[in-house]
Amino acid sequence: MHAITIPEPGGPERLVWDEVPDPVPGEGEVLIDVAASAVNRADILQRQGFYDPPPGASRYPGLECSGRIAALGPGVSGWAVGDEVCALLSGGGYAEKVAVPAGQVLPVPKGVDLKQAAALPEVTCTVWSNVFMIAHLRPGETLLVHGGSSGIGTMAIQLARAVGAKVAVTAGTREKLERCAELGAEVLINYREQDFVEEIRRATDGAGADVILDNMGAKYLDRNVRALAVNGRLAIIGMQGGTKGELNIGALLNKRAAISATSLRARPLGEKAAIVAAVREHVWPLIADGHVRPVIDQEVPMSDAATAHRLVEESRHIGKVLLVTS
Amino acid sequence: MHAITIPEPGGPERLVWDEVPDPVPGEGEVLIDVAASAVNRADILQRQGFYDPPPGASRYPGLECSGRIAALGPGVSGWAVGDEVCALLSGGGYAEKVAVPAGQVLPVPKGVDLKQAAALPEVTCTVWSNVFMIAHLRPGETLLVHGGSSGIGTMAIQLARAVGAKVAVTAGTREKLERCAELGAEVLINYREQDFVEEIRRATDGAGADVILDNMGAKYLDRNVRALAVNGRLAIIGMQGGTKGELNIGALLNKRAAISATSLRARPLGEKAAIVAAVREHVWPLIADGHVRPVIDQEVPMSDAATAHRLVEESRHIGKVLLVTS
Repeated sequence: MHAITIPEPGGPERLVWDEVPDPVPGEGEVLIDVAASAVNRADILQRQGFYDPPPGASRYPGLECSGRIAALGPGVSGWAVGDEVCALLSGGGYAEKVAVPAGQVLPVPKGVDLKQAAALPEVTCTVWSNVFMIAHLRPGETLLVHGGSSGIGTMAIQLARAVGAKVAVTAGTREKLERCAELGAEVLINYREQDFVEEIRRATDGAGADVILDNMGAKYLDRNVRALAVNGRLAIIGMQGGTKGELNIGALLNKRAAISATSLRARPLGEKAAIVAAVREHVWPLIADGHVRPVIDQEVPMSDAATAHRLVEESRHIGKVLLVTS
Repeated sequence: MHAITIPEPGGPERLVWDEVPDPVPGEGEVLIDVAASAVNRADILQRQGFYDPPPGASRYPGLECSGRIAALGPGVSGWAVGDEVCALLSGGGYAEKVAVPAGQVLPVPKGVDLKQAAALPEVTCTVWSNVFMIAHLRPGETLLVHGGSSGIGTMAIQLARAVGAKVAVTAGTREKLERCAELGAEVLINYREQDFVEEIRRATDGAGADVILDNMGAKYLDRNVRALAVNGRLAIIGMQGGTKGELNIGALLNKRAAISATSLRARPLGEKAAIVAAVREHVWPLIADGHVRPVIDQEVPMSDAATAHRLVEESRHIGKVLLVTS
């Protein structure tokens, strides 16, 4: 088969569409003929040499895919060859075939085409596990989403609205904010021109956000704590603004607030399977009935993954950028 | 009646046992003839002028008491004049009488005498709400308690052991550590001589603590994050080591860990009542059957509260220091 390999870390030009051996599904795994994968920031860090795959994972990038099941490893039940699926991967999605534990596989939801389904696993699992399983966003509460027009952001807006929460977003252009509004965001904050702490307070009668989904880390830490409501929960899923920041514990304590920080990729199989099962139970019906849909910027041939990486690195996209095999 | 007043903030000598008007129980409140109160660090901060009572609270210090119900305000059911009780207060415990919302009142548990019961409300509510309701300590997990010989610490050790968790403590003297061991702590760390990060790792095969109950805030923030296990939870309930510290978000994210910070006093009535109800359901039976008991350093006459404050400020005590009215 072909896969994107990274012979040397560096810029997008380091991504090489190369002939490699086919993967073989192990115990409890299925082999997928990949129709599409999608770009995640972690792929860019991996390409740059800053994010090695966890032990046991494929060396090729790609944290999600869609496709058809081509073979079942020993001990797999509930799936059949030919099933149209998508899957949460710990690597190897930028390839024509990938082997994945059966607990990380989901059926393609009703109403979504096979390639588009590649846009779903990372964003649904990340948003559901953080905003709902950890931060317990409730109906009537306010969610602030940083990077509202990203893949994660566009899914967070829709899921929060679907459960009856109010959504505020930050983004860097008017066009991105308009797309967030179309998806259901009610409070639109241009972070280049506005102070999000001030804006979220204004929009909540001074209360602040009950939950914040943050991809910036250190750069936003102090402002995020200030933007939280009493009993607020800050869920950090990225560190695009650095890894170490000053925490005002006094402010956190006065608000009886909490901070969590997680990533999906390093979780053990059991935790991933539990998240995937929760997504299938809670999110898949919302997609099937049309309340929530994948937001896709464009499809790029997988062999030209470099172009897709440049697009994401320059933040010119809205939603997900797909990598398609044919 | 008499109460401890603070005409001017300052040292222990500012505490004045003075004649003041009796409190009157309002709607939903009971009036308690106080047998004993107990010293909390918050009382010392209040005496120093750093911690004003929340709106609506008594101006007198004292966050807990025991005694007999002297009168019922309008709309109170489930309690009768003469009942022996203890109560979580938002202030006013350093007095001969105090009025308190009925939802914050607990019966004196079987096997505990009336004065000793004053040692229970703050520590049981603080430990239960933080270690169990927020951080969800589970059987088989490891709890690290900073200040293991404090009132909070001695209760945390016992409750964690009662649910089948392993307990590690820090304290500053061998005598204090020995008392922690008697209560069930298995890992004893003298913070003056040992590095608690290294010691907790050594005691857990390198894994770290699943839950940390912390009263130090900024001074321990970085070390606490390093001492956490994967999926660990840091529950901050005090800031004796300062309010602002550097948070290593990268380390937190790699561990998929969480930080909460809370205080009891500022919580609205409904939240306090929910915590008190949970303590009555889960902790009171453990006290009644002898698995958990109040740890009391000594009783001091309430009129001499200054002596009790000096004792606590110098950390010469183990467990709680009671203030008794007669």
